Amino acid sequence: MNRPIRLLIDCPDHRGVVAAVANFIALHNGNIVAADQHVSEAPGNRFFMRMEVETEGFGLDRDEFDAAFSPMARQHGMAWNVRYPDRPLRMGILVSKYAHCLLDLLWRWESGELQAEIPMVISNHPDLAGKVEAHGIPYHHLPATKETRAEQERQVLKLLAEQRVDFVVLARYMQILSPEFLEAIGRPVINIHHSFLPAFIGASPYHQAYTRGVKIIGATAHYVTAELDAGPIIHQDVAHISHRDGIEDMIRIGREVERRVLAQAVRWHIEDRVLMDGVRTVVFE
Amino acid sequence: MNRPIRLLIDCPDHRGVVAAVANFIALHNGNIVAADQHVSEAPGNRFFMRMEVETEGFGLDRDEFDAAFSPMARQHGMAWNVRYPDRPLRMGILVSKYAHCLLDLLWRWESGELQAEIPMVISNHPDLAGKVEAHGIPYHHLPATKETRAEQERQVLKLLAEQRVDFVVLARYMQILSPEFLEAIGRPVINIHHSFLPAFIGASPYHQAYTRGVKIIGATAHYVTAELDAGPIIHQDVAHISHRDGIEDMIRIGREVERRVLAQAVRWHIEDRVLMDGVRTVVFE
Amino acid sequence: MNRPIRLLIDCPDHRGVVAAVANFIALHNGNIVAADQHVSEAPGNRFFMRMEVETEGFGLDRDEFDAAFSPMARQHGMAWNVRYPDRPLRMGILVSKYAHCLLDLLWRWESGELQAEIPMVISNHPDLAGKVEAHGIPYHHLPATKETRAEQERQVLKLLAEQRVDFVVLARYMQILSPEFLEAIGRPVINIHHSFLPAFIGASPYHQAYTRGVKIIGATAHYVTAELDAGPIIHQDVAHISHRDGIEDMIRIGREVERRVLAQAVRWHIEDRVLMDGVRTVVFE
Amino acid sequence: MNRPIRLLIDCPDHRGVVAAVANFIALHNGNIVAADQHVSEAPGNRFFMRMEVETEGFGLDRDEFDAAFSPMARQHGMAWNVRYPDRPLRMGILVSKYAHCLLDLLWRWESGELQAEIPMVISNHPDLAGKVEAHGIPYHHLPATKETRAEQERQVLKLLAEQRVDFVVLARYMQILSPEFLEAIGRPVINIHHSFLPAFIGASPYHQAYTRGVKIIGATAHYVTAELDAGPIIHQDVAHISHRDGIEDMIRIGREVERRVLAQAVRWHIEDRVLMDGVRTVVFE
Repeated sequence: MNRPIRLLIDCPDHRGVVAAVANFIALHNGNIVAADQHVSEAPGNRFFMRMEVETEGFGLDRDEFDAAFSPMARQHGMAWNVRYPDRPLRMGILVSKYAHCLLDLLWRWESGELQAEIPMVISNHPDLAGKVEAHGIPYHHLPATKETRAEQERQVLKLLAEQRVDFVVLARYMQILSPEFLEAIGRPVINIHHSFLPAFIGASPYHQAYTRGVKIIGATAHYVTAELDAGPIIHQDVAHISHRDGIEDMIRIGREVERRVLAQAVRWHIEDRVLMDGVRTVVFE
Repeated sequence: MNRPIRLLIDCPDHRGVVAAVANFIALHNGNIVAADQHVSEAPGNRFFMRMEVETEGFGLDRDEFDAAFSPMARQHGMAWNVRYPDRPLRMGILVSKYAHCLLDLLWRWESGELQAEIPMVISNHPDLAGKVEAHGIPYHHLPATKETRAEQERQVLKLLAEQRVDFVVLARYMQILSPEFLEAIGRPVINIHHSFLPAFIGASPYHQAYTRGVKIIGATAHYVTAELDAGPIIHQDVAHISHRDGIEDMIRIGREVERRVLAQAVRWHIEDRVLMDGVRTVVFE
Repeated sequence: MNRPIRLLIDCPDHRGVVAAVANFIALHNGNIVAADQHVSEAPGNRFFMRMEVETEGFGLDRDEFDAAFSPMARQHGMAWNVRYPDRPLRMGILVSKYAHCLLDLLWRWESGELQAEIPMVISNHPDLAGKVEAHGIPYHHLPATKETRAEQERQVLKLLAEQRVDFVVLARYMQILSPEFLEAIGRPVINIHHSFLPAFIGASPYHQAYTRGVKIIGATAHYVTAELDAGPIIHQDVAHISHRDGIEDMIRIGREVERRVLAQAVRWHIEDRVLMDGVRTVVFE
Repeated sequence: MNRPIRLLIDCPDHRGVVAAVANFIALHNGNIVAADQHVSEAPGNRFFMRMEVETEGFGLDRDEFDAAFSPMARQHGMAWNVRYPDRPLRMGILVSKYAHCLLDLLWRWESGELQAEIPMVISNHPDLAGKVEAHGIPYHHLPATKETRAEQERQVLKLLAEQRVDFVVLARYMQILSPEFLEAIGRPVINIHHSFLPAFIGASPYHQAYTRGVKIIGATAHYVTAELDAGPIIHQDVAHISHRDGIEDMIRIGREVERRVLAQAVRWHIEDRVLMDGVRTVVFE
């Protein structure tokens, strides 16, 4: 099963964009096997498109694409991105002590669901080293205290750069990243928050949920921005709970939701299905 | 199908409560056809119980129950309530212009799902009079402006009292009830809020949700207290949305969730399945 | 809010189809506001596409479209269909005694969710006449016995033709349509079956489900074909049940699923989102 | 957190059973912390009850319970079972090559969700030995061919007996167990079938589902009986699919449902929440 080339575009909405791109692909003998588009209702009314083009027969290789496509892109005011399937994304994972999100990502990766490379896992705790290394993935233990946080973050940045990591997943990483780190990182960072945002921002969402007496709990996968738990949401889901479920039960039931929501968001990111529309996301499932 | 007598109890948790109650029922030749119990994890660890006893053969009628049960209830520190099935709850509905929650309640009531009486619908708008009266239910149009609000609320209270209404349902009633009204009403009031609380409290939750870019929308049925949208939650549910759903779509999809969540909460209330544990509810489904 | 022109296409999968259609639209000054496509994995690998084109500015009116589009369509081997928004579909509803699916369709129609015309409701029972006529829709009571079935079906066909009905919805119509009727009708017929097909085909699916002891019940909306409950499925959903739910409960819970599934399927049909891929459907949500 | 003693009872429905049992517990100074009961609508109208009694303070130890309880049980015609929490169930797992259900059970077991012992995993393939042994659990590779099947089943039975296994989980074990094996095993066997039964019985349910064009796929956990895929159902769930999902996608999406449904069913079994009512189950969640 050959995976296709993916082309992502966004630009101001106007007539003829689809035709222009479809013509460009046809001109270079490409076969469009999937296409999604969306015109945002948000102010600005941007147009978003994702296309999959069969690799076989397509006349432009990676190095030629830019020069061929850029003139038309400029003409239509497009921001765009193309990904050839022979160079999969490289995913760096940050984790603390909870294993469930990490193990689920590794299991799905091993089973072929996540078409990415995982050059390393970084943790502020040593606990999960064995489980990670059993998958043949290097594990970096970089402890962080209040005093050493800045230095630890520098080490993390250095490792991400050395390993040419394309994006970072916080698989229940229990440290708040500093504004300096987020400014420096220059890569998308996906976090899983254990509530249906915007409810229960910050620490101990299950305790907050118990106290409020809600009947559903949830999890939210989002891109990390400087403002806590306020970044663009990729995916959310919930589970029903009842008065019988104490905090321990909520944590147990929540694990199931967290790992599923994070894995889904990571999968969509890897398959270039997520585009930004301000603080909103366009997800071409 | 004979509906059973329902006995609701809550008291401090201690040994022998179940036996004491079960013995009491057995002593009076009652057959327990359903029983649920719960010990709260919340501070105070109260014990909650709901029992259904077959009407046929049970030796105590409504007037005798209190005198027979009270001594034991006092001994165990019980708050309790009994309902005989021949006197169904009387439900008053307040509504504004949106029909979906109201019509769904009426449809379910007509189809026998809701074993209650509906002596009237009150609205601050005339629009829905025809639909309500077509079901043979009186419709009271009591308009409310800033100036007349206090007087309108007095009229509402008067109608509720005259009609011996047991509880009130706000089926998308778009007026905020005054603290004075809530203090005076002396009956449970069930509201449907069109978000998954505690997210998006107050006005225009779908607009708030659109702006935040969430991927689920929801509805919450709760008892009304003086603090806006902060009362005990009876039921909540959500629906998934995507970037394709603008505010109009969210309103349309939300209607479906709102009417379902409200109808479920009303049904549980009518069947005496909801008990209070502080701001949390115990719902014996 | 102007509704768009919709163009549906299916043809053998090959290069350049998207470009050809997009060019055609651009040539006539059309703005593509939505587009979905799909290449079937089923034998034959057909290509399916649905496009929405803004009415405003588009240079072809209904009468010109065919002559302009046909040459290209022939060249690519396309089956195609175009719908201009000023002529909404006309939906005929057949019903027996159960009101829930019918009332839900009428409520959604009244609230603007279903952009169709409903020239009439036909029933083999008189019971629902009042409710239908209250919406200003003619109600035809055509009773059917074993002896009169053939004649009754002829009358139904006559009414459908007279009223230029585009498609028929069986909203819990408890009569099996004869092969002759289905051959003659020449319009799509959507049925709601109260199980998750292919489980519990035929009569009394809830009784079958109770006997088998399943933990979910469901409903299936499908196009009717000569083989009972075997037509192309448009939509399905389920609800969880437990040992506490007897057959009466299953019927009550099922009503909720049935009306939701049917309304969704009808909505998709009305919006031209459903295409046929043999016995499978392509649903461009 | 002390886990409680669990008492399971079923008997013909009649007055005074709850009182009799509650009195018995009170007599021996027990505190009932949870109780569920159910009267079956199925022919025979059996009464089912599950009670949790605090270990602390309860006056009967395991060896004394039978003699104390049996006279009352006989009097009421009860089938009953008691489990003290210090002796957890021993679960044997049979598996073939697919890892997802197995790994999920092991992960939940390791995280404390499943309060059981796992003395061994048996497989007809060698593939998963490493993953199982990494959890410190012995792995027995017992290959089975048509010729050796009977002998292999004898070995399996021998291992189950030697290890005093209480119940067996087929975590995608791709061998049909012989009637002789099922007759001899004398322990509950839980299977996960990858469809919403009774649809798609037997081999390749995802292929059957694709061919039929369904819009949901599911999984069913059930006790194994001699008739294929016809045993009492413990739990079922589904996932929505669309025309975009080919068979590979269905298998991937299905894995998620399978592992969740099986884990839930195993958890309920371990916590003594599942009772038999003919081919139906009573599940006291």
